[in-house]
Amino acid sequence: MDFRLTEEQELLLESLREVMARDCTEDYMKECYEKGEHPTKFVQALMDNGFGMLGVPEEHGGTPVDNLTMMLVAEEITRNGGPHFVFGQALSIADMLHFGSEEQIADTMAVVQSGGVAFVLGFTEPQAGSDSSAATTTYTRRNGKVYINGHKTFMSGALRAPYMLCLARNSEEAGHADKRNAFSMWWVPMNAPGIKIEKLEKIGWHMQDTCEVYLEDVEVEEKDLVGVEGNGFMQVLYNFEMERLLMAASVLGMAECAFEDAVRYANQRVQFGKTIGSFQLIQEKITFMKAKIENMKNMVYKCAWEVDNGLPVQISSAIAKLYCAQAANEVIDDALQIMGGIGYTKDARISRLWLDARVFRIGGGTDEIMIHAAGRAILKHYK
Amino acid sequence: MDFRLTEEQELLLESLREVMARDCTEDYMKECYEKGEHPTKFVQALMDNGFGMLGVPEEHGGTPVDNLTMMLVAEEITRNGGPHFVFGQALSIADMLHFGSEEQIADTMAVVQSGGVAFVLGFTEPQAGSDSSAATTTYTRRNGKVYINGHKTFMSGALRAPYMLCLARNSEEAGHADKRNAFSMWWVPMNAPGIKIEKLEKIGWHMQDTCEVYLEDVEVEEKDLVGVEGNGFMQVLYNFEMERLLMAASVLGMAECAFEDAVRYANQRVQFGKTIGSFQLIQEKITFMKAKIENMKNMVYKCAWEVDNGLPVQISSAIAKLYCAQAANEVIDDALQIMGGIGYTKDARISRLWLDARVFRIGGGTDEIMIHAAGRAILKHYK
Amino acid sequence: MDFRLTEEQELLLESLREVMARDCTEDYMKECYEKGEHPTKFVQALMDNGFGMLGVPEEHGGTPVDNLTMMLVAEEITRNGGPHFVFGQALSIADMLHFGSEEQIADTMAVVQSGGVAFVLGFTEPQAGSDSSAATTTYTRRNGKVYINGHKTFMSGALRAPYMLCLARNSEEAGHADKRNAFSMWWVPMNAPGIKIEKLEKIGWHMQDTCEVYLEDVEVEEKDLVGVEGNGFMQVLYNFEMERLLMAASVLGMAECAFEDAVRYANQRVQFGKTIGSFQLIQEKITFMKAKIENMKNMVYKCAWEVDNGLPVQISSAIAKLYCAQAANEVIDDALQIMGGIGYTKDARISRLWLDARVFRIGGGTDEIMIHAAGRAILKHYK
Amino acid sequence: MDFRLTEEQELLLESLREVMARDCTEDYMKECYEKGEHPTKFVQALMDNGFGMLGVPEEHGGTPVDNLTMMLVAEEITRNGGPHFVFGQALSIADMLHFGSEEQIADTMAVVQSGGVAFVLGFTEPQAGSDSSAATTTYTRRNGKVYINGHKTFMSGALRAPYMLCLARNSEEAGHADKRNAFSMWWVPMNAPGIKIEKLEKIGWHMQDTCEVYLEDVEVEEKDLVGVEGNGFMQVLYNFEMERLLMAASVLGMAECAFEDAVRYANQRVQFGKTIGSFQLIQEKITFMKAKIENMKNMVYKCAWEVDNGLPVQISSAIAKLYCAQAANEVIDDALQIMGGIGYTKDARISRLWLDARVFRIGGGTDEIMIHAAGRAILKHYK
Repeated sequence: MDFRLTEEQELLLESLREVMARDCTEDYMKECYEKGEHPTKFVQALMDNGFGMLGVPEEHGGTPVDNLTMMLVAEEITRNGGPHFVFGQALSIADMLHFGSEEQIADTMAVVQSGGVAFVLGFTEPQAGSDSSAATTTYTRRNGKVYINGHKTFMSGALRAPYMLCLARNSEEAGHADKRNAFSMWWVPMNAPGIKIEKLEKIGWHMQDTCEVYLEDVEVEEKDLVGVEGNGFMQVLYNFEMERLLMAASVLGMAECAFEDAVRYANQRVQFGKTIGSFQLIQEKITFMKAKIENMKNMVYKCAWEVDNGLPVQISSAIAKLYCAQAANEVIDDALQIMGGIGYTKDARISRLWLDARVFRIGGGTDEIMIHAAGRAILKHYK
Repeated sequence: MDFRLTEEQELLLESLREVMARDCTEDYMKECYEKGEHPTKFVQALMDNGFGMLGVPEEHGGTPVDNLTMMLVAEEITRNGGPHFVFGQALSIADMLHFGSEEQIADTMAVVQSGGVAFVLGFTEPQAGSDSSAATTTYTRRNGKVYINGHKTFMSGALRAPYMLCLARNSEEAGHADKRNAFSMWWVPMNAPGIKIEKLEKIGWHMQDTCEVYLEDVEVEEKDLVGVEGNGFMQVLYNFEMERLLMAASVLGMAECAFEDAVRYANQRVQFGKTIGSFQLIQEKITFMKAKIENMKNMVYKCAWEVDNGLPVQISSAIAKLYCAQAANEVIDDALQIMGGIGYTKDARISRLWLDARVFRIGGGTDEIMIHAAGRAILKHYK
Repeated sequence: MDFRLTEEQELLLESLREVMARDCTEDYMKECYEKGEHPTKFVQALMDNGFGMLGVPEEHGGTPVDNLTMMLVAEEITRNGGPHFVFGQALSIADMLHFGSEEQIADTMAVVQSGGVAFVLGFTEPQAGSDSSAATTTYTRRNGKVYINGHKTFMSGALRAPYMLCLARNSEEAGHADKRNAFSMWWVPMNAPGIKIEKLEKIGWHMQDTCEVYLEDVEVEEKDLVGVEGNGFMQVLYNFEMERLLMAASVLGMAECAFEDAVRYANQRVQFGKTIGSFQLIQEKITFMKAKIENMKNMVYKCAWEVDNGLPVQISSAIAKLYCAQAANEVIDDALQIMGGIGYTKDARISRLWLDARVFRIGGGTDEIMIHAAGRAILKHYK
Repeated sequence: MDFRLTEEQELLLESLREVMARDCTEDYMKECYEKGEHPTKFVQALMDNGFGMLGVPEEHGGTPVDNLTMMLVAEEITRNGGPHFVFGQALSIADMLHFGSEEQIADTMAVVQSGGVAFVLGFTEPQAGSDSSAATTTYTRRNGKVYINGHKTFMSGALRAPYMLCLARNSEEAGHADKRNAFSMWWVPMNAPGIKIEKLEKIGWHMQDTCEVYLEDVEVEEKDLVGVEGNGFMQVLYNFEMERLLMAASVLGMAECAFEDAVRYANQRVQFGKTIGSFQLIQEKITFMKAKIENMKNMVYKCAWEVDNGLPVQISSAIAKLYCAQAANEVIDDALQIMGGIGYTKDARISRLWLDARVFRIGGGTDEIMIHAAGRAILKHYK
């Protein structure tokens, strides 16, 4: 075994830290967060410094790197106080590069190369959360066109992305044996007539919009089918695993950010004539926070290494998502507690981390879905 | 033993629920919260219906009730989605009625009778949080007047209260054996020249302001001393115990509010063809949430009963505050998890409860201070 | 509300402590435990002092008391280091007094009056643990007699009790709509031909045997039917709730015993020049142990009060059993940790408590069954 | 990074499994445990197959391997149900090989080569547990000899080891600035006149004795000093870190053993018409057990790799010991719960694991000492 980063990885992270020291300052982040603005300047800086195309295949103008490196970058961004959603495009477009038509890929890459997010996933619906197969959005063929009707929700970034990858059920296929086969994915421009977008007000994640999207007779064409008809679900399963891993890496970085802020605070804050770090109750928190961070790091790195080595990650990606989301929330909550009243105010960035981290236990598959996915697979493994 | 409420208590709570159904609707609470406004209408309704003077001695125009009844009302307000800080004045002014001069009491009662909060506690300072005795605000006698200089923080309600009960150190007393004896309390009008107030932006509690207050040569007179000089600390110890108990009752009600919202949601929300309440992972959460709520209720009621019966509550009030603050945060967090993405949006009142509950583990003495207070007292008890 | 014990209850507990100080010393308990012997002397002392017939109806020669008093006595016995299984007979024979024939009641009372345990419950089978309805023991009518065949397990006290209350399925009733209606209860002498008993070696509870019992063509008569044929299950449901409550009370006393030993140890044990009780990590444990004990006490007392007042306890008895079993195990584990290496040796009674407490999370319905029972009932309550 | 074992490591573990399948069967382990006997046959098999000298330097007749390999073997032994204390001698004698005299090393190696344990550590005393520096055992020079007097306790394996490495205080050195400098280590034959050994009865670890040892005027000579006089403490600090890591690896294997037994049981055990593994409450336990095991493995391997690469492990070895001991106890407790009543009987090996694992949170430095060691070091790191 070897737990060392390569020299290239170390250099890449060093370079990232330089970019962030310049273009992702705490003042800038705080301002974007309070105004609910997209951190455009930082995203541009990532593009300008080559991070935007990291992990994208060479034939599409990118810089291929392994998944471990992708996770290291994702972690480093949030560890330094940056937003989690600005990196990892290469992972979310991987499916599209695989299944998409030439035109769809061209659409995608045009956006990606300009620093934008090409598409949002249109999966979740008000009555289809953990159970995506309950989705009721339909597509109907009429007069040589395809019409999509439905109501999607919890779409992150819907106000900025030019396309939606929309999961919809064939309105003519009523009783499939496996109802999942009734679903297909469609490439839908977000400015198509019949689309109405409404922003949801959230507890946190104020730099990224989350929206409800209503589709009323939205017209697309046969060429806008993504991949194979009826394969809508199967086509995204791999992506789900990578999304889980990426979320684990991001929330790990957030925990590290909170941890470092809290430890430094504990070293400086004096009460009862001593730094609070000299009290056992604080030392205890810090020790367990550190243990959790080590666990998260190991889980994320190992799972990424497994992907890079072609090993199955059904169990390990679900467990990484589950453990990291929970442990990071605990670490950040402890950090807030260490900082006391200060931590509860918006003057401390810990407050943003605390608000934002909570959603990682829900989005990308809830804790409960992770248990469902991992638990049954583990039991099966020992049969 | 007897765990039954009296008929009077039942009627009082019933009457409170009627007031709240009318003047403390979810729409009104949501609006106040989002705008960061004081819930004036509800406070007025409480006054109009006799809740504002509950617990205040008869000679001051109030309706005396025991502490258990006070806690039941505090719990019921938050259980029905109301704000925690609008009730319990009778407890916070109890010290003032005891130690205050006739004039100070008259000042206080004038505000209370009009539905306002008479004074804020000026204890905490940037460098004196858990360790109040590190406070550096001073009072200095000069030319027959008294001048106060210092910097207070985390003062809840400072923008609305007309007076501050200000803890300050005698600038001439350098080396007291017990430095706590150097402190006195002063009755300071918040509109006195030399006072500057700055609002802190918090994670939650948006209906109540929390402020930093700077005092620069604020002039008061000898008559504004509260109680006995040098007794500044001793005079508020009893109040601390009651504050802890009241916070426990309020956060209990918040947990119940979240619990009921979540259970109802689990009974309605369908995924995978069943209500989510039919899944063991949800049943488990709900069972433990219920257990915690039962524990909180028992703790709060018993501690209030102890106060009413003249029993010491040093240990039990600290444990009630500690346990209730932690357990309520867990219950509310579980409730949010049950509600999933919806729970993370501001459309669900669970989101407000989640944001607000966190501060109960910090304010009124942190978890760590409660452990400090209770732990040593328990050990001493067995010596 | 009122949290005070009555004078009678106080006197009863005082009297119990005197009995225990004499006949239930730590030396005696340790000796019985190590030898795996029944604590006969203490059981006799309980009889001699009137505790053996506590809660038994007057017409059967007993001293009726309410359930709260029963729980107080059960708690006090284990709190003072006594064995949990020697008290509460009145509760387990209540069903028999209700459903039993005159002869069966006479059999029962003869044993009870001599200080013995009249019968063991023959419910659990190797393939029917949490799911009692999977029991395969049958009874078959042949030539005017009834023959029982089957294999029972985890029967506590089978080596000492003269009778078994045996749940068996009518071998002629194959397809009941509700299969629970196929079960009846039979009164079986443990010395009947065809009965073979095998002792199980357990982690703890060394003062009480736990056995497997094989029944091969065990002959009983029609008169040995207990209650109504086909009502086997229904007849014991009430008993299950009381068993849960009694177990909660007993394990609570065990936690208190461990807590007091640990606190006294923390007050005496010196390390690094101070008593270990002066370290925050120990104070923290002790504070949370105390909080859990308070919660357990409140839960047990309130549930007993509910029974005494005719209120339903389906939810509260399941939650009391669940919470108390888990919390007591945590308290006892913390106590062992405070006592360090000493606690891991048999010289400390904490070691016995630690070994014994674990089974309370399994016997009388596992944690998981309690969640199942309470969770669904709570959800239903809010429908 | 690379998370793969080398081919040599895989082969070594495969070979170990073969040895264990033959000479460390469940029947044999159960028998040794119940009789409280040393597993001589298995220890001999380890010797015969080259595992006994693994990690011992070549010049002493051993087979050097890196620390990672040592941990893999330690883990594999307990994972397959073997005893934890039979492997890792190479680590505990490393100090002796470094500091010992030629004669002491010869003594040591003679025992090791015959499969025995050369010496026990004589550190802990009744009043010096976590605080070793409170040790009161003294050595006194008189007539050209050295006399040791004192009382050691919790000495594991004292009945079998021929030597003790005895920490003692110079009786003539009263007031050292750093009192730790007053301690030296002595090489004491366990059969020396004046030594009295008393076995402690423990909750578990029945295959290995744990003893109190009384030393009354035990005579040794100057040549029996180990290393440098006054360096008693410093000489074992490195050993403490390795002991922590080894304990972490062993308890990890125990957790894996329990986990695999429980998962297999959950796949087979049927209740309510389904395998219990199909219930969410069981899947949840299994998922978190798996997550903890992954965390433990990663921690142990990474820490071993750090040692092998000359990196400091003060923090990581303390955290590995702390986390693994706690997490393993949780995993084993969950496994017992999954197995229900069966798990509480001695027929299930889970019962032995449960009894044995508890001591890992106490021995080799308690949880609290690990927090003390790691917490302060982490805080210092961020100063």
